[in-house]
Amino acid sequence: MAFINENFLKLSENYLFAEIAKRVEAYRAANPDKARHLIRCGIGDVTEPLPQAAVAALHKAADEMAARETFRGYGPESGYDFLRHAIAENDYRARGLSIDDDEIFVSDGSKCDCANFLDIVGSGNRIAIPNPVYPVYVDTNVMAGRGEVFFLEGTRENGFVPMPPDCPADLIYLCFPNNPTGAVASRPQLEAWVAYARRHNAVILFDGAYEAFIRSPGIPHSIYEIPGAESCAIEMHSFSKNGGFTGVRCGFTVVPKTVMGKTSDGKVYPFHALWKRRQSTKFNGVSYPVQRAAEALYSSEGQAQVTVLTSFYMENARLFAQALTSLGWPFSGGVDAPYLWVRVPDGRSSWDMFSHLLEDAQIVVTPGVGFGSQGEGFFRISSFNARASVEEACRRLVSLR
Amino acid sequence: MAFINENFLKLSENYLFAEIAKRVEAYRAANPDKARHLIRCGIGDVTEPLPQAAVAALHKAADEMAARETFRGYGPESGYDFLRHAIAENDYRARGLSIDDDEIFVSDGSKCDCANFLDIVGSGNRIAIPNPVYPVYVDTNVMAGRGEVFFLEGTRENGFVPMPPDCPADLIYLCFPNNPTGAVASRPQLEAWVAYARRHNAVILFDGAYEAFIRSPGIPHSIYEIPGAESCAIEMHSFSKNGGFTGVRCGFTVVPKTVMGKTSDGKVYPFHALWKRRQSTKFNGVSYPVQRAAEALYSSEGQAQVTVLTSFYMENARLFAQALTSLGWPFSGGVDAPYLWVRVPDGRSSWDMFSHLLEDAQIVVTPGVGFGSQGEGFFRISSFNARASVEEACRRLVSLR
Repeated sequence: MAFINENFLKLSENYLFAEIAKRVEAYRAANPDKARHLIRCGIGDVTEPLPQAAVAALHKAADEMAARETFRGYGPESGYDFLRHAIAENDYRARGLSIDDDEIFVSDGSKCDCANFLDIVGSGNRIAIPNPVYPVYVDTNVMAGRGEVFFLEGTRENGFVPMPPDCPADLIYLCFPNNPTGAVASRPQLEAWVAYARRHNAVILFDGAYEAFIRSPGIPHSIYEIPGAESCAIEMHSFSKNGGFTGVRCGFTVVPKTVMGKTSDGKVYPFHALWKRRQSTKFNGVSYPVQRAAEALYSSEGQAQVTVLTSFYMENARLFAQALTSLGWPFSGGVDAPYLWVRVPDGRSSWDMFSHLLEDAQIVVTPGVGFGSQGEGFFRISSFNARASVEEACRRLVSLR
Repeated sequence: MAFINENFLKLSENYLFAEIAKRVEAYRAANPDKARHLIRCGIGDVTEPLPQAAVAALHKAADEMAARETFRGYGPESGYDFLRHAIAENDYRARGLSIDDDEIFVSDGSKCDCANFLDIVGSGNRIAIPNPVYPVYVDTNVMAGRGEVFFLEGTRENGFVPMPPDCPADLIYLCFPNNPTGAVASRPQLEAWVAYARRHNAVILFDGAYEAFIRSPGIPHSIYEIPGAESCAIEMHSFSKNGGFTGVRCGFTVVPKTVMGKTSDGKVYPFHALWKRRQSTKFNGVSYPVQRAAEALYSSEGQAQVTVLTSFYMENARLFAQALTSLGWPFSGGVDAPYLWVRVPDGRSSWDMFSHLLEDAQIVVTPGVGFGSQGEGFFRISSFNARASVEEACRRLVSLR
């Protein structure tokens, strides 16, 4: 009989959002009338229509696929040149950052990339993961069993921006603007991380999925704004949140050719070649119409539509911030990120607060403890919602006073 | 410094099709005039337009994404119910095979699924892989290092349908209709495999990507036509070849709840739960418009268009078969599969024949040895091509006489 990967048995039974869905469903079954007015501010899923530029590109590509002359079969596993070029040019070179087209790997999303990256990593690594953080980092490490995970504690004191520890690490996950806390890292803070990574020859996996929501001047939009990062950092991006692509599925990972790993006998290899081989062998590229839709986000209309979209969600964040302020509930985030990270009042637990908001206001939030032990006593509000829902949610929150 | 996955260093430098592309490119650079008339019968990539039903579904879904009322964000990681149901109903239950909707896992393609499946498999397994076969099975096993691989030798004598060995295995890869040989397995042959798997509590990974090309009556279209297979077989399918989806990206894997694996201390777990967890944690589902396009292949128009499409390619196969017969070159396949598996005349090597056909007929084929040592002395012709190209390729082949 085939052996299973027993690491899976070390995972908690439910993925956070599956657990939330289960509890909401139970509430709905018991309270069908009240549940009709549920407002979901839990999972960070976009609600607004796809930018018109992307829709037009989907239509055009569908028509191309309908004619022999313009039909496209297998595409390059790492993405079409047109998209790799648009990304490298607009997100990097236009900002003075020297990233080559072939250092961009197009994928069907950041979740897959950050999970799949562990395929090219060996055993015996010391892996530093923030706490609280997006649960996929921890879960995929548990599944892969690539090394020893230790946590970088985010606290009120450090503003949920943990700084480098005293001990060395080989792999470091960072996510700014942060999911779930909405915190952003300043340039000096990222400089400290890059210096640490270079001192230990470590690799930083930098998750920049929420970059488009940065509004404050001076906050780095990419880890590569820090000199030296090109030799120690891999950056992941997604079109899910800026372009509303959660259902369309496209993202990318930047793997500079200068980021190195080693074998057990000390030989040094570039992660770029390993990732390229991984993607060529285990992946068949992103749907052609989807890549055209992503490319369209970089057109001048597309960029304007992305700005409208991200600003819409950030106005939602402002409304939530206003309601929380009037309630006197301390929170952070919501300024450069679509998430608000709220301290649970009266010393209750995250899940207690989840139940309270569900039962007494029919609002679904995400319990902070779902993102790690340091999230206990907090909850996350997502600003990805329709305006009317946000306004109603704010009214209900304020009425809880 | 982070340790790399050293298994990657055990891979040959180039993926087969990358090596072919390199050699073709070198020929093109040296012979620009002749290379203008190249006919590519190497990689098995479709050439004909997407079925109209799928194109219409892509357009409709793009429009849905453009309006707030019908916009869709994150979908279920395992696929939308509408598609899981269409697959289970049409491909299985309509044929009297009892597969539940939730045993269908929608993905972006079979290559990913057969590669990713190793995530849920533990170490120490005995893994049986045919030779010759689709190189991804071997390469992904080398990368994952999950166990000891041994080969099931396909030969002229067994018609490239290897039968169960004397020794036990835990995981067995089977692919029928076969890539690259075009061989199909009869019902008694599959019965022998299912009996073997049940005797050893082994799991069969059955790759049915070319199922839609079966024309001979009596040849099983699914491993689940064999009683008992539901407790030992996982079946992978793709819309790449029947629906022309190589650039659209959609496939699925059937994981019956009754297929089990074990821990090192002998506890038994269903692979279904492990795969569901793997997909929920490491994957975010297939693009919504793509899932609608796949669903459309099951409509009555869609089914008719798929039949036209697969018949078109099988007529190409018939033309190739006719040319090979007139040349007197022994071959198999091309009857229930879009691939013809041809013996290299005059005892030359596969790569010699590749060069001969490239240089003297400007035809690109796939050298058999690229699919494993047992493929030496053979080459594969793909029937996925425009009719005019096939006719011209046949003329050139015949003129080599």
